[in-house]
Amino acid sequence: MPTARMSKPWMLVAGLALVYAQASIAQDPLPSWNNTAPKKAVIAFVQRVTKPGSRDFVPVPERIATFDNDGTLWSEKPLPFQLFFAFDRVKALAPQHPEWKTKEPFASLLKGDMQGVFAVEKGVLQIMTVTHTGMTTDEFARAVQEWITTAKHPQKSLLFTQMVYQPMLELLAYLRANGFKTFIVSGGGVEFMRPWTEGVYGIPPEQVVGSSGKLKLETRNGKPVLLKLPEVDLIDDKEGKPVGIQSRIGRRPIAAFGNSDGDLQMLQWTMAGSGPRFALFVHHDDAKREYAYDRADKLQTFDKGWDEAMAKGWTVVSMRDDWKTIYPKDP
Amino acid sequence: MPTARMSKPWMLVAGLALVYAQASIAQDPLPSWNNTAPKKAVIAFVQRVTKPGSRDFVPVPERIATFDNDGTLWSEKPLPFQLFFAFDRVKALAPQHPEWKTKEPFASLLKGDMQGVFAVEKGVLQIMTVTHTGMTTDEFARAVQEWITTAKHPQKSLLFTQMVYQPMLELLAYLRANGFKTFIVSGGGVEFMRPWTEGVYGIPPEQVVGSSGKLKLETRNGKPVLLKLPEVDLIDDKEGKPVGIQSRIGRRPIAAFGNSDGDLQMLQWTMAGSGPRFALFVHHDDAKREYAYDRADKLQTFDKGWDEAMAKGWTVVSMRDDWKTIYPKDP
Repeated sequence: MPTARMSKPWMLVAGLALVYAQASIAQDPLPSWNNTAPKKAVIAFVQRVTKPGSRDFVPVPERIATFDNDGTLWSEKPLPFQLFFAFDRVKALAPQHPEWKTKEPFASLLKGDMQGVFAVEKGVLQIMTVTHTGMTTDEFARAVQEWITTAKHPQKSLLFTQMVYQPMLELLAYLRANGFKTFIVSGGGVEFMRPWTEGVYGIPPEQVVGSSGKLKLETRNGKPVLLKLPEVDLIDDKEGKPVGIQSRIGRRPIAAFGNSDGDLQMLQWTMAGSGPRFALFVHHDDAKREYAYDRADKLQTFDKGWDEAMAKGWTVVSMRDDWKTIYPKDP
Repeated sequence: MPTARMSKPWMLVAGLALVYAQASIAQDPLPSWNNTAPKKAVIAFVQRVTKPGSRDFVPVPERIATFDNDGTLWSEKPLPFQLFFAFDRVKALAPQHPEWKTKEPFASLLKGDMQGVFAVEKGVLQIMTVTHTGMTTDEFARAVQEWITTAKHPQKSLLFTQMVYQPMLELLAYLRANGFKTFIVSGGGVEFMRPWTEGVYGIPPEQVVGSSGKLKLETRNGKPVLLKLPEVDLIDDKEGKPVGIQSRIGRRPIAAFGNSDGDLQMLQWTMAGSGPRFALFVHHDDAKREYAYDRADKLQTFDKGWDEAMAKGWTVVSMRDDWKTIYPKDP
């Protein structure tokens, strides 16, 4: 439930959308979904596993649902939003790093030459390293909190937290109202997501699984701190998603939601369990209201996942045809 | 809540004890605790953080409590119980490994010569490796479930799950009744604990943090499986406990419970946060009803932790003086 972390004004948009979603469940659990096949499939699945005495009944503790974040709960174009955070951090930290003015990829970034940044081999990795490691977890969380309250999307001029999908907020609330525990299982950084997922999605930090670097306990001014090291701990993408699910959650989901081939192994892992199962892909086919991309996309390919969904009859949401609205309306 | 995993008869003892603990909260939240300082300190802390409007009020989502397992929630003598599981697994697997009859440390173990086992350099590590890696997570969980339903403690002749501390079951239930989310943060193996913690402690798999090895996704008979690899992922002990808490929970506990120097960093990490905090050590000083050991113990040293608890006024429970009962009574 969004409580402790709801005190900031910037969370109001998503927060109110979530409250609205929760309040409206009684009438129609998914009001922003058209009455097409995906909505019917979701509701049929939830009714099937929650009906007491039925053969397919799933006890509450086993009702685990996992959601990818980028492209499934919020937008991910033109680049995953965590990269915009990293770029903005370089600009914020630049005064402390005069050498960046002449050192690539920082020089290009500071001049606003993104082509130049991407032309540097491992340029993005260097930017991620200086902006995501070398500080304490508390310092990093503060930087994320500051950024997410103020930074705006370069194309839509919305706060990034306004670019969450209203239909998915409703789905999260609907599942939780039916005893599901909702988790994020994302390729994005776990320390990047946790400061705001509770306020925006109602998903608390302990239910967020993501990519992570190693941490080291140190003492500073007599107090313990955790330092973020430039060493990979978990890449929570593709075959890393079942690993993240098992190591952090320890229970196989009965429902999983994604939007790209990076989520395919999570959906396969979910569907390979016994009893009733549900798998859903969000298909970005709405160039007008959001973005349109799938098989040919270089970063967020939806190709093998599409084929497997078709072959196995998994649910695929057309954002254009199945969703009435994309983003929460400004209150 | 102990639901799905409560169906096995072997869980009844601990399960009934837990239900009893939950039911009796209304009258006395901690009936197996004497009315001494530790009980008063626990209750005062819980009342302080749950009183609406008070300066020390802590919102429900922030009420995170972490518990060590071995020696804090159940006994750990003469050896941590996971080692008995490992030894029993060697015996169970021996028919498939005729070479073990002449290969140490297996030969000694199969002859019942434990001195011989411990005399082999890294003998225990070899035993842990063959019994905890090389199989799928599902296969391992099944082996744990089978063992924990039948194996008995070599000295007390009780099921290991009967050797949980009744006062701590009451404490877990009392905290949860007051909005706390209870987690295990143990040096023990996470895959060893998860199959039974929900039934025994009411702590679901996703709230269990423990030591772990790396996992690898593979396909067997067309289905995805996770293979347990002989590579360390997290040693969730000492300075690894704050790392485990941050990487798996992502939120600093406001209360932490341990019994040895292996828990000291977890308690320090907990106490270093702002606002009201609580730290408690269980002191094993009851040779008659359980075991007595502290500073001089080789495996479960309670020395630096004792000194810091004294210096900082943390709560230390004397099992002999502060607890009316140790283990749940047979129903």
